[in-house]
Amino acid sequence: MSDEGSGTAAARGGRRRSTASVPDLVGRAREGDARAVARLISLVEDESPLLREVMKALAPHAGHAQIIGITGSPGVGKSTSTSALVTELRKAGKRVGILAVDPSSPFSGGALLGDRVRMQDHALDREVYIRSMASRGHLGGLAWTTPQALRVLDAAGCDVILIETVGVGQSEVEVAGLADTTLVLIAPGMGDGIQAAKAGILEIGDLYVVNKADRDGADQVRRDLRSMLALAERPEGSWKPPIIKTVAQKGDGVDEVVAAIDEHFAWLETSGELRKRRTRRARDEIEAIAVTALRARWGDVHGRSELDELAESVGAGESDPYTAADVLLDAFTD
Amino acid sequence: MSDEGSGTAAARGGRRRSTASVPDLVGRAREGDARAVARLISLVEDESPLLREVMKALAPHAGHAQIIGITGSPGVGKSTSTSALVTELRKAGKRVGILAVDPSSPFSGGALLGDRVRMQDHALDREVYIRSMASRGHLGGLAWTTPQALRVLDAAGCDVILIETVGVGQSEVEVAGLADTTLVLIAPGMGDGIQAAKAGILEIGDLYVVNKADRDGADQVRRDLRSMLALAERPEGSWKPPIIKTVAQKGDGVDEVVAAIDEHFAWLETSGELRKRRTRRARDEIEAIAVTALRARWGDVHGRSELDELAESVGAGESDPYTAADVLLDAFTD
Repeated sequence: MSDEGSGTAAARGGRRRSTASVPDLVGRAREGDARAVARLISLVEDESPLLREVMKALAPHAGHAQIIGITGSPGVGKSTSTSALVTELRKAGKRVGILAVDPSSPFSGGALLGDRVRMQDHALDREVYIRSMASRGHLGGLAWTTPQALRVLDAAGCDVILIETVGVGQSEVEVAGLADTTLVLIAPGMGDGIQAAKAGILEIGDLYVVNKADRDGADQVRRDLRSMLALAERPEGSWKPPIIKTVAQKGDGVDEVVAAIDEHFAWLETSGELRKRRTRRARDEIEAIAVTALRARWGDVHGRSELDELAESVGAGESDPYTAADVLLDAFTD
Repeated sequence: MSDEGSGTAAARGGRRRSTASVPDLVGRAREGDARAVARLISLVEDESPLLREVMKALAPHAGHAQIIGITGSPGVGKSTSTSALVTELRKAGKRVGILAVDPSSPFSGGALLGDRVRMQDHALDREVYIRSMASRGHLGGLAWTTPQALRVLDAAGCDVILIETVGVGQSEVEVAGLADTTLVLIAPGMGDGIQAAKAGILEIGDLYVVNKADRDGADQVRRDLRSMLALAERPEGSWKPPIIKTVAQKGDGVDEVVAAIDEHFAWLETSGELRKRRTRRARDEIEAIAVTALRARWGDVHGRSELDELAESVGAGESDPYTAADVLLDAFTD
């Protein structure tokens, strides 16, 4: 499809000439037109009022793509691994979308593109679509924007979509909620064992990758991880996350990762878990949209409102937040 | 007041003997009874239905405490700095509350207490209340629980409340939203310059502290930070965040930090910004409570619901999330 550069250019251009109609954009995106895809994702990023129409048009064409979340602390080799995975997926003839989400930057409003430089191997591949997206967080955050961006890539014919986050913490968990399969990357010599436990990533991985496995301590990391994972209680018939060693820089072990992803996907399908995960994801998305709509009604976005007045009385100790919430809900739900 | 140990014990005890009435608990907490304070914060953590009554009773007595957010990447010396700040604040005769929030652990449901060990200098000081709190995230996350815990400590007579988060990213930004004054800690030799930019912390600090300033590179970090801060556009009359060097381990520079906090607080009061920040905080809290109530109504918490059915049809591509959100809102807001 296109590299990010032209995607961004198309998005900017799109904002200037807003003449392209939604059906036209959707039609072109479905044919894999990278500029149309870029434009649609920009609409998501900008929280455009057109999204309602866009998502309605895309919904029947989505559901084909396999969504892979990639998480891990800075320095474990996330971008290199993503790039190596893309190489492997391209060998198998898959059309690949990559969505890099930066939820830690709610103010600056521009996703970091530095790491994307490492993706330049794929920049000219028309079957690879790369996009960074800032999650500004003033609406529902990741839960609001990411599923919509995924739907765009999905309807545009991507077979596999890789979502990668910048940063650690809550966002990792949110990404896991959006993915069919979550890869957790870890590397030796980063005190990652403890970090893993801290960030709660032991609960979210469907697949663990010990990258930089040619370094000292890789086997130790693997052993530590294995014993930590063994402590987790898993109901019968549930998936047992494998641990795979890679040297993403050289491409070592990446074929095994792809094989494990496929195996996990097959398990998701036969166990009924895929349907469950996708329903849960739709649920979160519907909720995020509904809450966003409500917040707009009671004045989260626009000027002075009932909510502002309630907030002042709570701030001044004249009322309490529960009573204020009751007043707010009564005003909008009766 | 009490150390954390007894706080936790009281909380556990409280869950067993649930006979103490809310007015009784609130009365005792207002007198500074540590066990009552612990019990009330446990009610917050457990998302107890009693909170409505508790918050109503506490609201008129809150608003006195000065709330200080402390953020920074792991390893910058957050706990040591917090402890040193407490020592300094105690010299000035202030009653201090410390709330350590762990938002990165939504599943395990228990806040990490490891770092708290460093706080043992203050464990026996009756005028220092220390509490860790896990933010499980299944309701509104930080926005929901933290302001309520702050209100408990505030009404219990704390002059200053320090909030510290575990982890980096979104949670840092959320904590900044809850605090009157936000301290951003940074240390030499951690590649923190770039990390700072990534995490968006350049936008949230009211005060920057270069800790471990006896190490090589501290001046460089300070210079880098100064030039990055200089790039930010600030409207006329706005606060210019100072950069202070400390060696928290030895207590060096901590008096300067406290002086800068006081100076910032004075600015907040005279500029009208304090009222604005507290109103905004109340607003977020009211919204979080209202949204939580709505989500409970449409079945976020309990079994099968209208939302589940809508999610299935969206998951299957039969409907789109906007149409589903409309149906949901129509059902609950007409």
